[in-house]
Amino acid sequence: MKKQSIAIDMDGVLADTETQYLNFYQQIYGESLSREIFTNVPEGDALPNGAVMEFLFTPGFFRSLPVMDSAVAAVRKLQQKYDIYIVSAAMEFPLSLYEKKEWLTEYFPFIHWQHIIFCGDKSIIDTDYMIDDYCKNLDYCKGKPILFTAGHNLNVKHHTRVNNWNEVVKLLL
Amino acid sequence: MKKQSIAIDMDGVLADTETQYLNFYQQIYGESLSREIFTNVPEGDALPNGAVMEFLFTPGFFRSLPVMDSAVAAVRKLQQKYDIYIVSAAMEFPLSLYEKKEWLTEYFPFIHWQHIIFCGDKSIIDTDYMIDDYCKNLDYCKGKPILFTAGHNLNVKHHTRVNNWNEVVKLLL
Repeated sequence: MKKQSIAIDMDGVLADTETQYLNFYQQIYGESLSREIFTNVPEGDALPNGAVMEFLFTPGFFRSLPVMDSAVAAVRKLQQKYDIYIVSAAMEFPLSLYEKKEWLTEYFPFIHWQHIIFCGDKSIIDTDYMIDDYCKNLDYCKGKPILFTAGHNLNVKHHTRVNNWNEVVKLLL
Repeated sequence: MKKQSIAIDMDGVLADTETQYLNFYQQIYGESLSREIFTNVPEGDALPNGAVMEFLFTPGFFRSLPVMDSAVAAVRKLQQKYDIYIVSAAMEFPLSLYEKKEWLTEYFPFIHWQHIIFCGDKSIIDTDYMIDDYCKNLDYCKGKPILFTAGHNLNVKHHTRVNNWNEVVKLLL
């Protein structure tokens, strides 16, 4: 029997973008901000000085992202039962494409390149599940949407929510 | 009413890879080969000296590909009636990712980044049509497959075939 498939997002799901934003802000602006700064604010507006957009276009930002807690072990476990696809809306930041591929090779070498998709719009992706931190992707996905908690999505009520990778494993295994 | 969607491949469909292989071979090995060398041979084996795989990993190969005859005008016309997605199995050659995005920006600036997908396996792409030169993509596509003629696929009989972009327009408009 064909396995069910899961499309997994990168930024904010496999990769801990919030921690990276705070680290970059500390290094570049010399100020330590707290994680609450992301609560219920659009991601692009969360840092002072337009720093989010600045960092997203900074070489090295995507390559040096910390991996989300427990993500590697969880995806390994899920892979035993599901076809796992990594689906990242990378096309908005073309310089990130190579960095993202390198990052995946470092942390998720067990995901074959055939199962990696860098796209813009995720509306033509057809998997049984989609794990993402954005409604713009989940609202129109063809499979069952799963919202991965991030500061910017705490107000969203209309999707099944998971707060971390242990909850993903509990939900799907 | 929602438009129907078409996934269009890059190499061998929008981009004239056969001409590029011959040009590179002439420049690097100093020998002029004829296009018949591609007839009914797997693409990777078509040139002497393992040159196809060499060229695919040569920086600049993808950025300098000639655009396929009439492709730009045809895709513009199709875009009036269809949602056009560019879907390229670029992930096997990670260095090509940025070059391919730059190439699309040069020749197809009217395709929004949200409609560009770089993937490995195309099996999770769900569009109404798929135009591709490979059965490995068309045989499992969810929509209607359209085979774009290339030397390596002349023996394929089980898909609707188009020989050039004018035939695509005639078929779909």
